[in-house]
Amino acid sequence: MTDEEKFVGTTIAAWKQAVARLDQLTSKLSDTQLQAEVSPGRNRVYYLIGHLTVVHDRLFPMLAVGERLHPELDEQFVNKPDRKSGDTMSASDLRKAFNEVNSKLTAAFEALPTGDWLKKHAAVSDEDFLKEPLRNRLAVLQSRTGHAMFHAGQIRLMQ
Amino acid sequence: MTDEEKFVGTTIAAWKQAVARLDQLTSKLSDTQLQAEVSPGRNRVYYLIGHLTVVHDRLFPMLAVGERLHPELDEQFVNKPDRKSGDTMSASDLRKAFNEVNSKLTAAFEALPTGDWLKKHAAVSDEDFLKEPLRNRLAVLQSRTGHAMFHAGQIRLMQ
Repeated sequence: MTDEEKFVGTTIAAWKQAVARLDQLTSKLSDTQLQAEVSPGRNRVYYLIGHLTVVHDRLFPMLAVGERLHPELDEQFVNKPDRKSGDTMSASDLRKAFNEVNSKLTAAFEALPTGDWLKKHAAVSDEDFLKEPLRNRLAVLQSRTGHAMFHAGQIRLMQ
Repeated sequence: MTDEEKFVGTTIAAWKQAVARLDQLTSKLSDTQLQAEVSPGRNRVYYLIGHLTVVHDRLFPMLAVGERLHPELDEQFVNKPDRKSGDTMSASDLRKAFNEVNSKLTAAFEALPTGDWLKKHAAVSDEDFLKEPLRNRLAVLQSRTGHAMFHAGQIRLMQ
């Protein structure tokens, strides 16, 4: 294993741990429990799973590793806050979509050549990237891992 | 900037963002508000700040980058759950301790030679590290960044 493979492997391992934590927390909750708010007046767990599904799904084009799987979820789970539109997907189908996005993303991450992780992502211009080389794909993956843990901490309050 | 410096720089940047997020969330709360629970029956924000201070303080010996600054906080904030011992530090002093630990840690991370991040940390044996090279210092930093974001998500519920 080269040093570069170790750097990338460590970061992908942290992503997998965050996804595993979310799986562990949400699999303990019934579909009915997903309808509960993480704290009074706050987002439902159901909404957070949809929100995370969309944010992760958007990584396919952003990191240039594939096509999006569930763009139909954007409206309910990112464009609008919780309970501002009707629920468009059953809890069971939402769990499936979340798992599908995460597992296909992880496979794509593991297949990406090591050196590609330091290349720019789709949301930064060539000009900005020349000045700020840390705005690379690896930074996006670390940011999304942190975002997943942020919401995992909220879902944890249900147990 | 070499590729190795980019890998390490990206990871330290993610750590700094997590600490900045915690600073931003807690600086909005008064000392009185820190006494509130993040959700009914859950940890107080005050406790979470103490808990994060200890977990971060332990990184000095774990990553071999310095001596601990506040071992006296272990008993209240890690060994015991919230409200199982009297508060040993004022909110104001706790904020100072948290900031002191984070800023000295960040300076130590930035001073660590790039190649050292792939070395083993103090909590893994030589034998295990030979088999599992991803149990390196960088993995610990990413894990603690995720842990900081996990609790940031909970503190976010106070706003």
